[in-house]
Amino acid sequence: MILGLDIGGANTKAASSEGMFAESVYLPLWKHAPLEEVLDRFAARRPEAVAVVITGELADCFSCKREGISALTGAVRQAFSCPVYFWGADGFSWIDPLELAAANWAASATLVAREMGDCLFVDMGSTTTDLIAIRDEKTLAARTDFLRLAAGELVYMGLLRTRLDALLPQARIGGRKVPLAPEFFAIMADARLGLGQIGEQRYSCETPDGAGKKRLDALRRLARSVCADLDEIGEPAALAIAQQACERQRSILIAALQRQVRKHELRRVVAAGIGEELIAQTAAFLGLDCMRLSQIYGEKISDVFPAYAVARLAEKKISEAAGCTRIAGI
Amino acid sequence: MILGLDIGGANTKAASSEGMFAESVYLPLWKHAPLEEVLDRFAARRPEAVAVVITGELADCFSCKREGISALTGAVRQAFSCPVYFWGADGFSWIDPLELAAANWAASATLVAREMGDCLFVDMGSTTTDLIAIRDEKTLAARTDFLRLAAGELVYMGLLRTRLDALLPQARIGGRKVPLAPEFFAIMADARLGLGQIGEQRYSCETPDGAGKKRLDALRRLARSVCADLDEIGEPAALAIAQQACERQRSILIAALQRQVRKHELRRVVAAGIGEELIAQTAAFLGLDCMRLSQIYGEKISDVFPAYAVARLAEKKISEAAGCTRIAGI
Repeated sequence: MILGLDIGGANTKAASSEGMFAESVYLPLWKHAPLEEVLDRFAARRPEAVAVVITGELADCFSCKREGISALTGAVRQAFSCPVYFWGADGFSWIDPLELAAANWAASATLVAREMGDCLFVDMGSTTTDLIAIRDEKTLAARTDFLRLAAGELVYMGLLRTRLDALLPQARIGGRKVPLAPEFFAIMADARLGLGQIGEQRYSCETPDGAGKKRLDALRRLARSVCADLDEIGEPAALAIAQQACERQRSILIAALQRQVRKHELRRVVAAGIGEELIAQTAAFLGLDCMRLSQIYGEKISDVFPAYAVARLAEKKISEAAGCTRIAGI
Repeated sequence: MILGLDIGGANTKAASSEGMFAESVYLPLWKHAPLEEVLDRFAARRPEAVAVVITGELADCFSCKREGISALTGAVRQAFSCPVYFWGADGFSWIDPLELAAANWAASATLVAREMGDCLFVDMGSTTTDLIAIRDEKTLAARTDFLRLAAGELVYMGLLRTRLDALLPQARIGGRKVPLAPEFFAIMADARLGLGQIGEQRYSCETPDGAGKKRLDALRRLARSVCADLDEIGEPAALAIAQQACERQRSILIAALQRQVRKHELRRVVAAGIGEELIAQTAAFLGLDCMRLSQIYGEKISDVFPAYAVARLAEKKISEAAGCTRIAGI
């Protein structure tokens, strides 16, 4: 099988090109998580080739992106004895390693362009959301995270890891407006767990306080976000904070989709990632057609789509002898 | 000597009642910093009595404030063999340990009320800012952090530790508006270091990425806040982010002071803490008289004022035989 890898700052994802295997592992690189061990575990599956996209170069354990790219490509080459292909913003052919920085969206969008035609491709993960316009099999997106942030093609907001205070600077509680403390007290996963939108097993990242993933733990963290104990403000207040944070995330996503579909005159959304359902609801709210990748490839693949996409793209390249030698020449 | 202690979540501060000794130690409790060691070091100075204010109970290593209070009061009692007095929101006399939560502002304001009369007392530390109205020797403030947040008497913003993205959701760079990533990439200390407003030694907290405290390290972190390398956006862009964050902090402080002086019809500000100068500038901007505690007690005392204040308050109590027995009775 051909294995695709998406090495992010917080999560490393893997998928096989035929779609039978898909896995996401929480691996916070800035905390020096054991990437090598996980790569060795994937290598034990003896893939015939490995295709890789990287976004983890931004993790602040690296002084610059070049250092991050070199460390991560090195770790992959170390772990696998089979041919390894790295995908850059313009494909498998690249000259400067910096072209490999934050190119996972490009792999996803390239496959979507081939298989689904014109659309706004939206992939919401635990930490960020990519919104990529696709027209005539071309991806209309800026090339760096910085430019994509400015263009609204990268919205630094995800379903789980995003800090609550980043989305909700102040909450309405009873008659009061209460600013949230800008500390790492609570995240969106706590809001969704508290509201029963996700279960423990979907809370895939660490908890801010290192405590548990039970509902009560989440409610405690929600209360702490306004410097309070749970019994001090009560459960309804904690849930109000959660509700308002989710509402705010929804409205940010609506504005983000609207901006891109208007700019690129698109009427169709293709949704992927663990935030697929939220994207689909947003598209429906805006009266846009929406195709969910989970309905085509299954939920596990949708959740790790860049890894699957780069595996599929490598498979195609390999099957094209000419392309194959070109890749091998890299 | 009588030693005052202010045990916060990020910093523990100490001062002696006669003002000869003052020290602040960065001790992030949520990272299980060695509080006991530091307390033992203070105990080696053999104070005749110790007076304590606590705010560290909010640190998320404690499941609730009561647990935090009990752990921190226990640590102090363990370290000192002399009499130990804990200050609550209403003074040294208290019944429920929860009255000790986040009461450091009350000690400061009580001393300021006695020695300086009517004013808005503003103490800006590395992480938060307290704004306490004082009239007729009474402190007009809510009793809990939650209620103080709602009333604008606690503004969760400090000179150094506050995350950049919490103050500046998006920066203007060149012609672009670029959202900052809601990650722990850069803090106000990086903005001030980059702009040359503080030197390395004033950067008293940890760096977000664990890297150095040289100007270049700070500029790198500033660039990372918009997902970029420094050489990707250049130094002027990094400095623009820093400038805009400082400007935003200034305007938040202006609004915060204005809200309190209007509400309580005050014309005089008393400024304390490492943010004293910024408070004084803000007061001047608003045409308010401002007294800086550094000019009365010296800069070192102003920086750790709650510790000094509680030491002074204990000294007075002890000198009042009646009060003395009452305290001893606690």
